[in-house]
Amino acid sequence: MTLLHVKQNYAQNMCTPRELVQQIKECIAHFSDNPIWLHVLSDAELEPYLTRLEHAKMEELPLYGVPFAIKDNIDLAGIPTTAACPDFSYLPERSAYVVERLIEAGAIPIGKTNLDQFATGLVGTRSPYGACQNSIDSAYISGGSSSGSAVSVALDMVVFSLGTDTAGSGRVPAAFNNLLGFKASKGVVSTSGVVPACRSLDCVSLFCKEASDVSTIFEIMASFDEEDVYARALPPQKSTIPFNFTFGVPKASDLQFFGDTEAKVLFEKSIQRLIGLGGIPKVIDFNPFLEAANLLYSGPWVAERYFATQTLLHTSPESFLEVTRAIIAQGEMKKASEYFEAEYQLKAYRRAAEKILAEVDFCVTPTTGTIYTIEAVQADPITLNSNLGYYTNFMNLLDLVAYALPAGERSNHLPFGITLFADHFNDRALLEMGERYRKESV
Amino acid sequence: MTLLHVKQNYAQNMCTPRELVQQIKECIAHFSDNPIWLHVLSDAELEPYLTRLEHAKMEELPLYGVPFAIKDNIDLAGIPTTAACPDFSYLPERSAYVVERLIEAGAIPIGKTNLDQFATGLVGTRSPYGACQNSIDSAYISGGSSSGSAVSVALDMVVFSLGTDTAGSGRVPAAFNNLLGFKASKGVVSTSGVVPACRSLDCVSLFCKEASDVSTIFEIMASFDEEDVYARALPPQKSTIPFNFTFGVPKASDLQFFGDTEAKVLFEKSIQRLIGLGGIPKVIDFNPFLEAANLLYSGPWVAERYFATQTLLHTSPESFLEVTRAIIAQGEMKKASEYFEAEYQLKAYRRAAEKILAEVDFCVTPTTGTIYTIEAVQADPITLNSNLGYYTNFMNLLDLVAYALPAGERSNHLPFGITLFADHFNDRALLEMGERYRKESV
Repeated sequence: MTLLHVKQNYAQNMCTPRELVQQIKECIAHFSDNPIWLHVLSDAELEPYLTRLEHAKMEELPLYGVPFAIKDNIDLAGIPTTAACPDFSYLPERSAYVVERLIEAGAIPIGKTNLDQFATGLVGTRSPYGACQNSIDSAYISGGSSSGSAVSVALDMVVFSLGTDTAGSGRVPAAFNNLLGFKASKGVVSTSGVVPACRSLDCVSLFCKEASDVSTIFEIMASFDEEDVYARALPPQKSTIPFNFTFGVPKASDLQFFGDTEAKVLFEKSIQRLIGLGGIPKVIDFNPFLEAANLLYSGPWVAERYFATQTLLHTSPESFLEVTRAIIAQGEMKKASEYFEAEYQLKAYRRAAEKILAEVDFCVTPTTGTIYTIEAVQADPITLNSNLGYYTNFMNLLDLVAYALPAGERSNHLPFGITLFADHFNDRALLEMGERYRKESV
Repeated sequence: MTLLHVKQNYAQNMCTPRELVQQIKECIAHFSDNPIWLHVLSDAELEPYLTRLEHAKMEELPLYGVPFAIKDNIDLAGIPTTAACPDFSYLPERSAYVVERLIEAGAIPIGKTNLDQFATGLVGTRSPYGACQNSIDSAYISGGSSSGSAVSVALDMVVFSLGTDTAGSGRVPAAFNNLLGFKASKGVVSTSGVVPACRSLDCVSLFCKEASDVSTIFEIMASFDEEDVYARALPPQKSTIPFNFTFGVPKASDLQFFGDTEAKVLFEKSIQRLIGLGGIPKVIDFNPFLEAANLLYSGPWVAERYFATQTLLHTSPESFLEVTRAIIAQGEMKKASEYFEAEYQLKAYRRAAEKILAEVDFCVTPTTGTIYTIEAVQADPITLNSNLGYYTNFMNLLDLVAYALPAGERSNHLPFGITLFADHFNDRALLEMGERYRKESV
């Protein structure tokens, strides 16, 4: 399901939004053993959106009748937001700013999707509603924390979905479900109406199957929100990526595949594909990125997760999954002086990263080094989760924009993904590169 | 003593740099009962600077032979840096980056000046070397923390001096000694080689008697330092202040003079003077600024002061003045979650301030509401110090540029000062406004 496909269907009167929604509900029912959805809108809940479309002109709404899914830490008016913690649940009166923009553009919210509790995790197994299964092989993890959002797009239930991405939650599930996952520069997409994980770092992200859809939908999402104190207007694009571009690749010894030799081969192939597109690879020092990544969970930013959930944590600790509580509770003990120490370090990594990024058009890494089964993650929930953040945890701390792209599949049909990243505000240049990459590879 | 005066003297062979330095030493000796200087360079220590000038061309060095003073929390190679804490003292091998730039331009470092210990204070009395006396009336405080730097310029010992300014240390002593005090946008002047107070907020500031000197010397100081992770290059100037400009003034009920009725009259006169210069006053909401100011000492930033001095604080607490230790020690207890809470608040104040500043060319406030005697401050060291930060504490937290200017004197000859401030990177516009203001008032 893509924008083009849905538009053509409507234009040729193949179906109405009302009919499409019913087809989607059948599809959702078909996969009901996979805990993808925490709430699917009832016919009554959908009615206002459908009625409105019946009074609107298709050509005036860029997302007319386009179904989408919303990660359940992002508010949809009148539907509970749980953040995958039932005791945390509340009923928002207003939709999140970005959800409002999408609905305004004609999109239809289908429901709220499963996630790693409080968006804390990269696995998709940390939910009291059950571990969301991979869309290709149900023995494997979907990736997280935006697990349900990714799987709902992968299974053609919706054209696109919203995730959030603090440490990699908008990229890892893209890689594991053969999707595109775009995490804009911090602040470019409003986080008003989003349950904070690390409020100073949180981004709302986008999952799609088509690069052109990502570009189109991003422009609707990238609306400056005065009410979001972290909002930043995306400046006019400075530069595009030239026909012959330079891309950074970490030196071989800094690449980590955790024994996944097929992933290594697929990454090498993706480098070749970028070379085929006109790219000149340049080996970069990956250390500043890795050092910054280490700060995310070992450092003081976990205090933001604590700050966001502290009331429930103190009154009802049993409301949390054990693994989630253990991570978040660490945030209580962190000192402000540790924060500043980490900030000084981070500023130095940022300065180093800036110089590296200034010499290339973008960088490329695997999105994750490998993928795991649900069983393996349940046996070792912390270490394997950390492994999955190896290429993702630094992105928001260093203020970068990132685009996760499919990059082939392993012999067991599980997909492999790469991530292109660049300095903040190169959002449109990276989106354009994503389109070029996808055109060549299709 | 001004740049013009010194240049003319040299050009007309009225004296040499070597002779000028000897005259300065006599002047310094004359005021030796006022603890302005912590170290005056010996003839041997001055020799390399003087020798170099004898081999240089006057017209090639913009600050040829210009004497300056350095606050003793800024490194000068080969001279101890004490931060007004003898047990903290160390001998730097290299000068601070900004000191290097000034010396490179021909300026002669005369010595290191007294300060409130660890730049923590706005009074000038918090030094084990004694309370620096006001240059106009020795019963009064000089202001701090850059006490000696201000007084050395006021007493014509040097053409200019370097201070630091985290909470107001570069502006309060300017107001109390009838000087100009310029605090550039954060990061525009390097802080490499400066003892940190709050490293994320610290600025190096400049004291002068002439606005044109401030503009000239600032351009030499505003050199991007790659090694300073907080450095920011000053972007090309966007706009100048128009002939008919708009300036913001807090509403009357937000102005605080602490009973100093003469200060109130002088402030009103300075508003009239700005109107006479073509300005249209606009009443602004001062609350976001005051709320931000409150965060500086009550909030988590004091943890930076703790971080910078913690080793000595734990091994030798008696090395600190009691008042300084009491303030800095609070930083140990602050939690990282408190930091983030304050950051979220500050982001909201910044957003509000941004909107207010976008509607005016600059804002004006008193630099301080009043001035105190040394005796009064010694009797009540915390409250009176806090009063002096009422108009200054928010500036760096909100990322603004500020210029303290003389604005008349009270009947007892003690000066009153105003501060112009604007959003960051309006440095040159504000410097230009300072020149206009001074031309009219001379």
